[in-house]
Amino acid sequence: MIVILKQNHNEEQLDSLRRWMKSMDIDIHTSQGMNQTVLGLIGDTSQVDADLIRALEIVEDVKRVQEPYKKANRKFHPDDTVVDVNGVKIGGGELQIIAGPCSVESRGQLCMIAESVKASGATLLRGGAFKPRTSPYAFQGMRADGIELLLEAKKLTGLPIVTEIMDLSQLELFADVDVIQVGARNMQNFELLRRLGQTDKPILLKRGLSSTLEELLMSAEYIMSGGNEKVILCERGIRTFETATRNTLDLSAIPLIKELSHLPIIVDPSHATGIARMVEPMALAAAAAGADGLIIEVHNDPPRALCDGVQSLTPAKFDALFKRVMAIAEVRKQIDQERTVST
Amino acid sequence: MIVILKQNHNEEQLDSLRRWMKSMDIDIHTSQGMNQTVLGLIGDTSQVDADLIRALEIVEDVKRVQEPYKKANRKFHPDDTVVDVNGVKIGGGELQIIAGPCSVESRGQLCMIAESVKASGATLLRGGAFKPRTSPYAFQGMRADGIELLLEAKKLTGLPIVTEIMDLSQLELFADVDVIQVGARNMQNFELLRRLGQTDKPILLKRGLSSTLEELLMSAEYIMSGGNEKVILCERGIRTFETATRNTLDLSAIPLIKELSHLPIIVDPSHATGIARMVEPMALAAAAAGADGLIIEVHNDPPRALCDGVQSLTPAKFDALFKRVMAIAEVRKQIDQERTVST
Amino acid sequence: MIVILKQNHNEEQLDSLRRWMKSMDIDIHTSQGMNQTVLGLIGDTSQVDADLIRALEIVEDVKRVQEPYKKANRKFHPDDTVVDVNGVKIGGGELQIIAGPCSVESRGQLCMIAESVKASGATLLRGGAFKPRTSPYAFQGMRADGIELLLEAKKLTGLPIVTEIMDLSQLELFADVDVIQVGARNMQNFELLRRLGQTDKPILLKRGLSSTLEELLMSAEYIMSGGNEKVILCERGIRTFETATRNTLDLSAIPLIKELSHLPIIVDPSHATGIARMVEPMALAAAAAGADGLIIEVHNDPPRALCDGVQSLTPAKFDALFKRVMAIAEVRKQIDQERTVST
Amino acid sequence: MIVILKQNHNEEQLDSLRRWMKSMDIDIHTSQGMNQTVLGLIGDTSQVDADLIRALEIVEDVKRVQEPYKKANRKFHPDDTVVDVNGVKIGGGELQIIAGPCSVESRGQLCMIAESVKASGATLLRGGAFKPRTSPYAFQGMRADGIELLLEAKKLTGLPIVTEIMDLSQLELFADVDVIQVGARNMQNFELLRRLGQTDKPILLKRGLSSTLEELLMSAEYIMSGGNEKVILCERGIRTFETATRNTLDLSAIPLIKELSHLPIIVDPSHATGIARMVEPMALAAAAAGADGLIIEVHNDPPRALCDGVQSLTPAKFDALFKRVMAIAEVRKQIDQERTVST
Repeated sequence: MIVILKQNHNEEQLDSLRRWMKSMDIDIHTSQGMNQTVLGLIGDTSQVDADLIRALEIVEDVKRVQEPYKKANRKFHPDDTVVDVNGVKIGGGELQIIAGPCSVESRGQLCMIAESVKASGATLLRGGAFKPRTSPYAFQGMRADGIELLLEAKKLTGLPIVTEIMDLSQLELFADVDVIQVGARNMQNFELLRRLGQTDKPILLKRGLSSTLEELLMSAEYIMSGGNEKVILCERGIRTFETATRNTLDLSAIPLIKELSHLPIIVDPSHATGIARMVEPMALAAAAAGADGLIIEVHNDPPRALCDGVQSLTPAKFDALFKRVMAIAEVRKQIDQERTVST
Repeated sequence: MIVILKQNHNEEQLDSLRRWMKSMDIDIHTSQGMNQTVLGLIGDTSQVDADLIRALEIVEDVKRVQEPYKKANRKFHPDDTVVDVNGVKIGGGELQIIAGPCSVESRGQLCMIAESVKASGATLLRGGAFKPRTSPYAFQGMRADGIELLLEAKKLTGLPIVTEIMDLSQLELFADVDVIQVGARNMQNFELLRRLGQTDKPILLKRGLSSTLEELLMSAEYIMSGGNEKVILCERGIRTFETATRNTLDLSAIPLIKELSHLPIIVDPSHATGIARMVEPMALAAAAAGADGLIIEVHNDPPRALCDGVQSLTPAKFDALFKRVMAIAEVRKQIDQERTVST
Repeated sequence: MIVILKQNHNEEQLDSLRRWMKSMDIDIHTSQGMNQTVLGLIGDTSQVDADLIRALEIVEDVKRVQEPYKKANRKFHPDDTVVDVNGVKIGGGELQIIAGPCSVESRGQLCMIAESVKASGATLLRGGAFKPRTSPYAFQGMRADGIELLLEAKKLTGLPIVTEIMDLSQLELFADVDVIQVGARNMQNFELLRRLGQTDKPILLKRGLSSTLEELLMSAEYIMSGGNEKVILCERGIRTFETATRNTLDLSAIPLIKELSHLPIIVDPSHATGIARMVEPMALAAAAAGADGLIIEVHNDPPRALCDGVQSLTPAKFDALFKRVMAIAEVRKQIDQERTVST
Repeated sequence: MIVILKQNHNEEQLDSLRRWMKSMDIDIHTSQGMNQTVLGLIGDTSQVDADLIRALEIVEDVKRVQEPYKKANRKFHPDDTVVDVNGVKIGGGELQIIAGPCSVESRGQLCMIAESVKASGATLLRGGAFKPRTSPYAFQGMRADGIELLLEAKKLTGLPIVTEIMDLSQLELFADVDVIQVGARNMQNFELLRRLGQTDKPILLKRGLSSTLEELLMSAEYIMSGGNEKVILCERGIRTFETATRNTLDLSAIPLIKELSHLPIIVDPSHATGIARMVEPMALAAAAAGADGLIIEVHNDPPRALCDGVQSLTPAKFDALFKRVMAIAEVRKQIDQERTVST
């Protein structure tokens, strides 16, 4: 951590800062520049609160040198983490496809989709039972009943299931769920993260709409600091000024996360764009960029009562997408192998 | 709601959309343009899911005409809502100042600050017991003990207290708290909002870092749809590309919210800027823009053990700020009265 | 265009609006909703100034239905535009790679890189002669001399050249340049765009850091409305809150632009990320997403005098990248052909 | 400047970096941390290109300690700059109001507004002759004729005039203009800035829609480095995800700029919000926050032929706004004087 002092700073206050740091086993190296004095804090600064130091009267600015996360940090864990979900390995160089409906709506709907995506080659089944909706008047999901149906679909197909938790009080219902998803709006629900860190379930942690990658890794750190290291990160688009897509999918997150962390990272092209016909090109791009997995929404033809023709990605379209994505993934895999050999 | 159809749309699918709308008591007016056909949906469209319609193959775009919130909407409630907190009226034309420490640290600290801000003129006491922190290694607040100390300070000074809830499971501890704060990161914690809607406590709802004003009002709607209409909105800065301040305080939110909604809106200049010396100018600006209140962090001199000189806004500086803000608020009040008379 | 009226609007003012629209040959269809009256403007509304209408006292909001661009709009020009640059076709289904140094520094540097990227397979040569730099104290490019060197490199290798114009007054120097680049900071330099619309040179138009895709297309429209339809669009990253990369590369721009417009779109992964080791994964992703081209910075080993080891992407690394990108592009091409056949 | 080295960096390359720095008269202090080696560069680093150093293989990150601007930097010029425009002092503690129409439309319109805003108390007249418009089909201003009319209005009223330049080629027409405005879209038109630095005219430099305050100051530095120190900065809203206002007015720019720089800063509430009824509250807020001036659009009643009732801020409303803003400015002035006395 680098502390830049104000010009003409009070020496007494500087001594006080030195004593405070010493009490935390932090050494200080002083660099006297032409216009500025700069302090280098040497030691384990991950516990030092940069904001507290920035608030000091003698301090102009504080800059972190060391990342504030440790367990999620590749520097301290050079090898890739592979999360094993009932035998499906996320992070080991294969592209895993998680597919299923946005919301669980009925047994018929879910089982039909589950069997169809399995036939196409998907290795995990997703489906929303608890649905975070901006409006209190919108459909909020089948909740506990939705979890039941997911477990039935799991039995039917053998696919491990991924579904979202919205509140700590729902945790009991997730006993047989294979991967617990934490949604973008809950990425900094710290009480929830801390509690999930005490379970041994794989956690699919989605990036918040306005969260930096560092904040995403800090939220992973919350879970990991409790003892649960099975964290799968998910890029799902960030909020920007552009309104042509619902969010802006930040695919540079993939190589960046792989550099900063050993955790696997997957991509959700469905929520990021909010436009069904953009799911395929973004899925192809994510595979080429080196994602460890994709999470794709698949809908069957909705009942006539709702509306003919409402559809995100039909099973048939998903089947085509799957083949195309795998063709790209195959090339990417060869590139990675070739690179490993040449290193 | 306006639905723009694709050129050469399928008429059968259009009929299906018509029948669906009819089943929801929504009438459709059709406008045939040169290049486009536009449908106007007439009726109570607040329950229509725009995303479902946008997903239809025949639809190019959907635009809302009516706001999706009702209880928070000024159109249906023209008069200002005044939230009464033990006699302190928020929203009635007076500027209320909520002050206190960021975190409750000890009885001595809290009581000293509480008495001091009361002497300056603050009408509510704030203090964090549960602290949402980006890092799992940072101080997480005194939690239940912090609530206890706040209640003691309330008894001592008579000031009603405002403090943040982080999870539903903490709700019991808030029985004697006067205003429950929902932090920016929990603005879309819908399970929490729904439950708070079943209480009769005033709720201080902070705008999320990447939330639009419409989303803020939708979150207020969650609380209000449960029956609790005592919602106080709070602008605390949004996340933008600018890094010179922690967040960008969006003061245009004040006149905009007052136009869209009848709910009171206050401003938190401390968190928005993250820089103590910017609190005063932003507090003055908020008062001039017509805010119903301010929430200001006040620190006493922290113990030597921590670090001499760490300080956000000392009681002495707060006292000066209070007088200055009130001088601006006085002018603003005269402007508002003059405007009312001339209308 | 849809005009939403205020409740209780003045009928006289509404009549005045009707007369104004009539004078512009615009018809008005009125839809009377429960709480709102909505006007549909029918006719060529691309010349109607939405802001003027929005400013009317009786108007609550205005929403565009028709895109404000015509010449760049795919609706009116369904077939892809192919820009022919001395025989190199941009937009025809092949992935073209534009490569070269960020700045032209010397004859030796430029020619060495030009020959090397040509040998790898690049089809156009880029190089900056006029350099927009944030700081007045930074190197501003070789300017006219740089253009001379580019023309020499063109003669040497036969590669058409792409270089950036910064001001109208430089236009004469670009007489033998093959593609004139308009940088992100000049995307809304309307005087420059208008003048370039009077030339017959292909224009490479980069998206501004905070420009929506609609604004990018409106800037293309400026050039095209002058008669020059040879516009190549370029996504190069937008400014967001994320600071881990210099900008956020918005790859969803590729499928979106292809839907909205017939113009070719290429991607600049070097400027977007600002990090050499991220150029390759983002180039692969862009190729998979369907880009018509890539523009890649290639540096030779800089002179020892500057600093050993300064390097963005060396010719050797570019050569490897080229092969990998082409392998992805090949798969993408097969996907596109298969899709065309099945449609 | 702080350079953070990668773990296991190559010592030869480090020596090379040392020699390079030495050649620029920069000393290096080395701090050896637990996990990281950090170099402090001591000397005049404003000419060191941080991006070049960041590109080195041995470097993990570079952080600036010293601001990259000098002439605009308050550290080197502690006293406020006061720009004198024909006797009107901008920056000297008084709030100056610049008012006039968005576009110059006719002699009658301009003179009527000019006399009216002068009568209200405005001290400068604004009016657009060259208009940057997103659409090539929108009205582009009266151009040279508009400048003529502004000069007539100046003769008539004695008010100095402010108007926007869009391209270097227009500079001759600005010989008698008092303040040359550089619009937000041209804030990084470096050729234009450099040329304006060779004039002796006051320059009103508007912040770009996606420009940081540091970039704004760097653009001021372009002008100042040419010898023209009469730069007036202008906050006019930045682009964020919020769509309820056209842009987000960043009022914290006022105290921040005053801390970082000695240049005066004014605020444009009209363009920031894009909503006439929000101009007054934002103008009041800007005055309270300590702005040196405001630039306000005033329209007369537009001709019936255009549309009755189109109005941004009428002369009558401007007159009321002026009095209210001055009442706030008066309180702010007392606060500043009181603060000066107590320091």
